[in-house]
Amino acid sequence: MMSEKTYVFHFQDGDGDNKALLGGKGAGLCKMAQMGLPVPPGFTISTDVCSYFNDNNHFYPKELNNQVNKNLLKLEDEMGAKFGNAKNPLLVSVRSGAAISMPGMMDTVLNLGLNDETIKGFISITGNARFAYDCYRRFVSMYGDVVLDVKAEGKDDIDPFEEILEKKKAEKGVAKDNELQSDDLKELVAEFKKKIKDRLNIDFPEDPMEQLWGAIGAVFGSWDNERANAYRKLNSIPDDMGTAVNIQSMVFGNMGDDCATGVAFTRNPANGENFLYGEYLINAQGEDVVAGTRTPQPINKTQKTRDDQVTLEKAMPESYKELEKIRNILETNYSDMQDMEFTIQKNKLFMLQTRSGKRTAFAALKIAVDMVNEGLIDTKEAILRIEPAQLNQFLRPTFDYIKKQEAIDAGKLLTKGLNAGPGAATGQVVFNAPDAEEWATRVQSVILVRIETSPEDIKGMNAASGILTARGGMTSHAALVARQMGKVCVAGCGALEINYKARQMKVGDTIIKEGDWITLDGTTGEVIAGKIDTQPSQIIRVLIEGSLKPEDSPLYQDYSKLIKWANEHRRLHIHTNADTPQQCLEAIKLGSEGVGLCRTEHMFFEGDRINSVREMILADNIEGKEKALAKLLPMQKEDFKGIFSVMDGKPVTIRTLDPPLHEFLPQNNKDIEIVARELGVSVDTIKTKISFLHETNPMLGHRGCRLGIVFPEITKMQARAIIEAACEIAKEGKKVMPEIMIPLVGDVNELKNQKAVIQNVAKEVMERLDISIDYKIGTMIEVPRCALTADHVAREADFFSFGTNDLTQTVYGISRDDSAKFLEAYIDESIWENDPFEKLDQEGVGFLIKTAVEKGRSIKPDLSIGICGEHGGEPSSVEFCHRIGLNYVSCSAFRIPIAILSAAQANLKD
Amino acid sequence: MMSEKTYVFHFQDGDGDNKALLGGKGAGLCKMAQMGLPVPPGFTISTDVCSYFNDNNHFYPKELNNQVNKNLLKLEDEMGAKFGNAKNPLLVSVRSGAAISMPGMMDTVLNLGLNDETIKGFISITGNARFAYDCYRRFVSMYGDVVLDVKAEGKDDIDPFEEILEKKKAEKGVAKDNELQSDDLKELVAEFKKKIKDRLNIDFPEDPMEQLWGAIGAVFGSWDNERANAYRKLNSIPDDMGTAVNIQSMVFGNMGDDCATGVAFTRNPANGENFLYGEYLINAQGEDVVAGTRTPQPINKTQKTRDDQVTLEKAMPESYKELEKIRNILETNYSDMQDMEFTIQKNKLFMLQTRSGKRTAFAALKIAVDMVNEGLIDTKEAILRIEPAQLNQFLRPTFDYIKKQEAIDAGKLLTKGLNAGPGAATGQVVFNAPDAEEWATRVQSVILVRIETSPEDIKGMNAASGILTARGGMTSHAALVARQMGKVCVAGCGALEINYKARQMKVGDTIIKEGDWITLDGTTGEVIAGKIDTQPSQIIRVLIEGSLKPEDSPLYQDYSKLIKWANEHRRLHIHTNADTPQQCLEAIKLGSEGVGLCRTEHMFFEGDRINSVREMILADNIEGKEKALAKLLPMQKEDFKGIFSVMDGKPVTIRTLDPPLHEFLPQNNKDIEIVARELGVSVDTIKTKISFLHETNPMLGHRGCRLGIVFPEITKMQARAIIEAACEIAKEGKKVMPEIMIPLVGDVNELKNQKAVIQNVAKEVMERLDISIDYKIGTMIEVPRCALTADHVAREADFFSFGTNDLTQTVYGISRDDSAKFLEAYIDESIWENDPFEKLDQEGVGFLIKTAVEKGRSIKPDLSIGICGEHGGEPSSVEFCHRIGLNYVSCSAFRIPIAILSAAQANLKD
Repeated sequence: MMSEKTYVFHFQDGDGDNKALLGGKGAGLCKMAQMGLPVPPGFTISTDVCSYFNDNNHFYPKELNNQVNKNLLKLEDEMGAKFGNAKNPLLVSVRSGAAISMPGMMDTVLNLGLNDETIKGFISITGNARFAYDCYRRFVSMYGDVVLDVKAEGKDDIDPFEEILEKKKAEKGVAKDNELQSDDLKELVAEFKKKIKDRLNIDFPEDPMEQLWGAIGAVFGSWDNERANAYRKLNSIPDDMGTAVNIQSMVFGNMGDDCATGVAFTRNPANGENFLYGEYLINAQGEDVVAGTRTPQPINKTQKTRDDQVTLEKAMPESYKELEKIRNILETNYSDMQDMEFTIQKNKLFMLQTRSGKRTAFAALKIAVDMVNEGLIDTKEAILRIEPAQLNQFLRPTFDYIKKQEAIDAGKLLTKGLNAGPGAATGQVVFNAPDAEEWATRVQSVILVRIETSPEDIKGMNAASGILTARGGMTSHAALVARQMGKVCVAGCGALEINYKARQMKVGDTIIKEGDWITLDGTTGEVIAGKIDTQPSQIIRVLIEGSLKPEDSPLYQDYSKLIKWANEHRRLHIHTNADTPQQCLEAIKLGSEGVGLCRTEHMFFEGDRINSVREMILADNIEGKEKALAKLLPMQKEDFKGIFSVMDGKPVTIRTLDPPLHEFLPQNNKDIEIVARELGVSVDTIKTKISFLHETNPMLGHRGCRLGIVFPEITKMQARAIIEAACEIAKEGKKVMPEIMIPLVGDVNELKNQKAVIQNVAKEVMERLDISIDYKIGTMIEVPRCALTADHVAREADFFSFGTNDLTQTVYGISRDDSAKFLEAYIDESIWENDPFEKLDQEGVGFLIKTAVEKGRSIKPDLSIGICGEHGGEPSSVEFCHRIGLNYVSCSAFRIPIAILSAAQANLKD
Repeated sequence: MMSEKTYVFHFQDGDGDNKALLGGKGAGLCKMAQMGLPVPPGFTISTDVCSYFNDNNHFYPKELNNQVNKNLLKLEDEMGAKFGNAKNPLLVSVRSGAAISMPGMMDTVLNLGLNDETIKGFISITGNARFAYDCYRRFVSMYGDVVLDVKAEGKDDIDPFEEILEKKKAEKGVAKDNELQSDDLKELVAEFKKKIKDRLNIDFPEDPMEQLWGAIGAVFGSWDNERANAYRKLNSIPDDMGTAVNIQSMVFGNMGDDCATGVAFTRNPANGENFLYGEYLINAQGEDVVAGTRTPQPINKTQKTRDDQVTLEKAMPESYKELEKIRNILETNYSDMQDMEFTIQKNKLFMLQTRSGKRTAFAALKIAVDMVNEGLIDTKEAILRIEPAQLNQFLRPTFDYIKKQEAIDAGKLLTKGLNAGPGAATGQVVFNAPDAEEWATRVQSVILVRIETSPEDIKGMNAASGILTARGGMTSHAALVARQMGKVCVAGCGALEINYKARQMKVGDTIIKEGDWITLDGTTGEVIAGKIDTQPSQIIRVLIEGSLKPEDSPLYQDYSKLIKWANEHRRLHIHTNADTPQQCLEAIKLGSEGVGLCRTEHMFFEGDRINSVREMILADNIEGKEKALAKLLPMQKEDFKGIFSVMDGKPVTIRTLDPPLHEFLPQNNKDIEIVARELGVSVDTIKTKISFLHETNPMLGHRGCRLGIVFPEITKMQARAIIEAACEIAKEGKKVMPEIMIPLVGDVNELKNQKAVIQNVAKEVMERLDISIDYKIGTMIEVPRCALTADHVAREADFFSFGTNDLTQTVYGISRDDSAKFLEAYIDESIWENDPFEKLDQEGVGFLIKTAVEKGRSIKPDLSIGICGEHGGEPSSVEFCHRIGLNYVSCSAFRIPIAILSAAQANLKD
């Protein structure tokens, strides 16, 4: 007989390291149980079942029923209670838990096992009818909502159970839920059940086993709900991972004042400080903390901000001490900061969850560096601990603090909330997520203001610069999501009176209307009326502006350690896309080892150069063109001298003219008239030229090397500027390493043609200036044909550089300018997992790049190859470049730290 | 001792089949000499020396001098004369001869060996001082021109030797060269030599060996002259083949009236009739025939057109009989029609050249078929004898070519464009499509002239006899549609200045107004003012119009034999690109075995359907779109029924909607107003939609399957029309084989998405109609990513079809609409050998196609794969498709015969 596949794992048996099988929550519970920590007994149904369930029309594997029953029996044994027993009923929670945390996205059912029979036993065991009925009515409404899908219908409707509850409170003349008496709650149970009957024409299931399977199915089904799908898309979580289901005996934080529930981090998730950090509520269930209906209390004195706050440390010192102990055990075991959920039932602490804690970039950095200092992890592990994209936050602007102080002094401080997502944000107020999305397309910056946020708001949150909520704590939905997105967030601002309908909010006497500017300081929790300018980050101030001393910035010290470690562990070189000496200087300070892409045409727009460019374009004959180019020559040369000087011997890759010439001509009648006057030509001349240069598909038109081939005089001028600049700098005794890059090559003959032009100029210049310098001539690979014939191209090229932006456009046959009309449908329909212009498409574009690398190196084994498209600063793309053996990636200056860290991670993962 | 490499071959020794080594002329002379035909003795210096000479700075291999000397001695022996001997001088000719004939491109020197000493002996041997001095003066001027490069300087100068000659004639009071007396000619020799001295400050070389090496060097050098290079480029002859040099003892056709020289073909090169065909001149040198200074006489009575003509047959019957004998010997030996040069010296016939004769398409066909009948060649050889592209000529209307030449001679040639749609068309000019339709109802024939055409113009194009455009290349809209319709088209005539408003165009100083007659030669690209009569092709009259009986057309009889033989020898299937039942019918008659590409959108323009299409585009909601689509459904269904019916079980590949929606909207204000009125919407509504749909790069925009994904209702309607049509035809008891093709797929998920839409519709339709039919769903591969991920795509696709037009655009990153600005430079600079939109680029695009075929078949070994781009009717591309193992090529109907023949040739060459 074949051994049966195991789908259900008792917490004492499951492999706590196998999150793929047990989900994050399940694995954590197993691990904690097996460490001997106080975990309420239970078991996990594996993620395999979720996949089976969703692939097989919501059927389960045939073995499942039996395995659940066996584990349930064991649980009954452990708890000394019986599921469905009228005297001594076992109550369980049914919770989702995927391998990658998706907070709040999927469903949970608590207090399952209650019915009109078992409630009696539950009352007698707890000796608290009010509590018992409170659990019951919570269970019925939760089950009605989650499993039976009895919800508000449409956005103007309200939750049907909420409606009944509110009516009941009004009827009883009470304001708060906990003022309702046991009989009131009992009535609620009956009214809730009736509502369900009215809506669905079915009776509420009284059989606990039916309840259990209903809840299991709902949790597995919730993997596929709209908000979970949206969340996965946003976070690039594969759709086929599935969730596990955790069935656990209930513990109660809401049995009285010797009970509590809370969430804690082993270190501060906002700034990384090495203290237990968290919040809790006395006499509450976990959902109360997350939902933000009551504002939680700080867990210990390090977090206390007001005198009226009561910490857990003070209120329940024994439980607090045990939590501190558990914190140490978990950090030692996991070597990472943990995010824990706990419940205290009658002064006994239970652990309900542990997982790697989400943290801000600032906290991630500090924790990683601290843990190296503490000996918990090594530098390699520290490198792997930071999401490269997070480094971006260190380079972001913060407030001009003087201006902020002035605003505060001027009475602009509206209120203060929780500093849920650090950073500075200023923008125009909107009151719902769709508006945030829409406004963001047309104004500089928006702040999304909500009473509290929900998973439906995710896209709007993503579009906003900052998020402000009236309710909810540091672990509310708004806070969690904002931190993960790197968004500024101030949460739980109780002073805000938000009126969605009127599209305004009131703070004291101040009214803020939709469209008004406000400013959030996510680091302090301050909410300020009006717009406040921002200023560069500390890292930028230290590295680039020099306005802050390194020793005055602990952040910089941690940051520079991390970058140093990453530099020691990477193989890829990091170059930058920069067009001016100033940009080059900044890039070097951020760690660049060369210029991977200098776009000469960007220089064409500076000052009045554009006039010479236009004169060149408008010239009818070669003499006229050369005359105009002669005016440009000294200017381009000075630019290159500046760049060579700054780069001081590091390679500088300069691309010859790329864009179609019509891009340099004025676009509208007014500008045409101005230019006509300035150049002393007729308006008609310019219009005729514009019409002559018009292209149906400019992206595929007369640009790149196609310009230099038809107008070799342009290439000559640029070659002259580059080589003269290099020679003059070399004469000053400095090193120079110019690399001239020919764009848009599709045939080796194009490269040959331009190479000959450049070599002739170079020879002439070097003879005239009586100096010889080394220079390279290579090609940008940005059309498929160049990649497909890379072996031929390699015979003429000193280097390759993939222009992955255009290469992605041509490989897909998609114009980035025109993709908006179908991009959303493509993501919604799961046709694309990612926008290929953000993350390099490894399957198609990447395969072509790999082919080209192999073909190129088959001819020249040492051929230097890099990429210079936007993907050069995107972590997964950098990893790909490392894996296929490129020499460097080149990206914009502010992405260099990301590229450095990504390159190190790629090498360490190798 | 290593054996020395042989560079020089005596005519009795050289391998007459090795044209690569000996050149065409040298090989022919060797072969004839070795057959015992009367060839003046001589030897050939191989093409190897040419390559050496041009690669080594004009130095020769060291062995050469010795080998030439040895062969010269042997020649002296054979001729009983001595090179440079004052009494009995040997005179030779020095002629070029490459492997592929380049008539008139390279240099020749005759009478070499004459100097002031040898002239005496030459006079005494010939007994004719006038003749001897005539030879001498010809030699000096020819040597001065060819070897010493004494020529007219600039275009206003005249030839310096010609100038002296004319002066001499004037001085002597004579009109013709042959009226000059021996002393006059002697004076000319001296004056020519003085001219050379004046120009170059060198003495004319008197040493015959110096003369010989000078001539050899000049011939080898002439391989690299400007006109030879241009000719090779034009005819795709590789630059590294090189020419041989033939040194041959002189014979003279100009020694008196018992001498003659001529050129003859073994069969008539114009119509293929099996008679000796040629022309000759009494008392003349070969150059006189070619130069056209005297009008040659017909060689025999079959060619005699006037009574005053004297045939060779009559004038020199013995020589003529010998020539007839030689004609038979040569045809038997070569099994092909030969082009011969001969000279008769004092009634003795000498053969100076034989080579395969150039011939018209009509002659090629007749000769090939006749030779099979005569048992000279087999059918395989006959198939290989016809240039596939020539078949086109049989399907096109033809001119009365004498009248056309008269028109050109009368200065009526306006300009030349691309020969985009071959054939002859003459008609009255109109400048827009509606006018073309309207005029066609009341005048004999119209020519539609547009700057460029768009899908809106289709009906007008159909009504016109010919289409002329100012912009666009060989695969522009005009060219593609014209070829599919079998229309004459001249495209991309940059010289036309078209003024729609004034209803006229300007070419140089000529103004052509609406209603004026013009004539297009779509085979040459010539545009001619005025009317030239045309006549329809015999093949079309027999096959398609039925207006000519097969037995009344010998051309048709030969043609149908060739096509039958080709069909027996090909492996590739030939499909057609056709959009209407009528086109399908014509394609079948021309040999099509299926429809490879039916573009559904072409049907959208018929009748008032376009209004429903526009209604669909303008609809704001899905209901409105579906309502408009419902109107289109029955019309599309009828089209498909017609096509299925005609195709009678042959596969029909139907592409779902491809072009961006803006192509269906009106372009200018007037049309917008009309459409607004017709559809009952506001002008603003249409303008807003046009502006919304505007694209920066429409080629890379919202088109292809991207439309069907965003608007699944369109795919649904089309799937419904196809499946319902197929089911209804199947119910009539006919066979149907619909293949639905999804365009522009770049990711397998796109195909999956559209496949699901189609399968759902198909299931519903088949259930409703209670019939089950087979159908396939496949993809067009026209963006590189689809090819690069063809293994993934193959899992979902029933077939692949390469859309090589768009694939070429995306692989090169070139918009064919915009390539005109650099295309010319690319051909001039030899960056491209061919326009990749005409001949499939095998190195880049072809490599990608090959990769995709391998990837696709790695998943589905029997995957059916074809191409449906314009390359499907281009011979070298068809051969490539055969070689990489495709199942079929699909091309427009009129290219089917070309494809059939190319496919057979590819298979025979395999």
